[in-house]
Amino acid sequence: MHALSVDYGQRHRFELDAATRTAEALGVVRHTIVSVDLAAIGGSALTADMDVPKDRDLTTSEADIPVTYVPARNTVLLSLALGHAEVIGAADIFIGVNAVDYSGYPDCRREYIEAFSRMANLATKVSVEGQLRFTIHTPLIDMTKADIVRCGTALGVNYGLTHTCYDPNKEGISCGRCDACQLRLQGFSEAGVQDPIEYQ
Amino acid sequence: MHALSVDYGQRHRFELDAATRTAEALGVVRHTIVSVDLAAIGGSALTADMDVPKDRDLTTSEADIPVTYVPARNTVLLSLALGHAEVIGAADIFIGVNAVDYSGYPDCRREYIEAFSRMANLATKVSVEGQLRFTIHTPLIDMTKADIVRCGTALGVNYGLTHTCYDPNKEGISCGRCDACQLRLQGFSEAGVQDPIEYQ
Repeated sequence: MHALSVDYGQRHRFELDAATRTAEALGVVRHTIVSVDLAAIGGSALTADMDVPKDRDLTTSEADIPVTYVPARNTVLLSLALGHAEVIGAADIFIGVNAVDYSGYPDCRREYIEAFSRMANLATKVSVEGQLRFTIHTPLIDMTKADIVRCGTALGVNYGLTHTCYDPNKEGISCGRCDACQLRLQGFSEAGVQDPIEYQ
Repeated sequence: MHALSVDYGQRHRFELDAATRTAEALGVVRHTIVSVDLAAIGGSALTADMDVPKDRDLTTSEADIPVTYVPARNTVLLSLALGHAEVIGAADIFIGVNAVDYSGYPDCRREYIEAFSRMANLATKVSVEGQLRFTIHTPLIDMTKADIVRCGTALGVNYGLTHTCYDPNKEGISCGRCDACQLRLQGFSEAGVQDPIEYQ
């Protein structure tokens, strides 16, 4: 198992430290971090100088695509994962997209992932030469956040090592009020599990 | 017209200066350069510490995919172009892939480009919401290098501003011996046009 994280200029870069801790705890062969300057493209509250929305009522605005959407982000992430997979000879690529609690992101849906898979198998030397056939796995795609918390807890995931907040303070402490924090807290609450991380 | 270049750690970074000069000469609205650290992934003579092949006989080895292949490169480039296009509201993306003289690169073929287009239109907020339908244009895909030289000459392209070599010296002077140089020189020769750039 290899882990890949992407430093794309996200304001919650603190998640890269959390990914490093988690990858270490899982005993991966190697955790690779690739940098890509998506701030040069902009267009998102996560990479440009825009405010991250707080305290939104997610029961009513769920269908909107929020300003935290990063243009083509999952396509960039999966493209880098594809190149990495080709180099290390891995046929199976896993991404934690989730279409349930947050249906607003187009690149979290199954039909998008299927289209990416078809493209991926036409894109690379190893797939075209028949050495590898890539599969994009999305184990979380149809689960609610509560399901994910329950499943992770049953599997022994240490959620104390993880990070979710889009807009942490300088010490990396989560805000508890952005969409990502709200969905995380609601998931833990519905699952009846205590969220072990600290909030502001 | 907007121009996008990608600094992916290529050893022939000098091409970014050539792209800047060319974009300026064409009067683009803006030339954006996005950095992505593909060296962290490696696996190519263009981004890793490997020798660029010289003086290959391209008449016999044409079908092989050479070590200058960069894993998933065009997928990464097009993904960044897709994000950029979404932000600036551009429906038409142009890429200069060419499948004729160099049939070895899988991500230069028409079926790959078509699969990328299908994926792109499922990937973004603007396409899913029906504001834009992306088209990936590949005007050079079926042309020989000689055709490209003839066509560019007829259109008034200043080839003196361009750069092709994979392995230029520190002053940016082309080697004349890598695959890219050989194909360029052959294209100019077949077109009966003098190549205005300098060689070592």
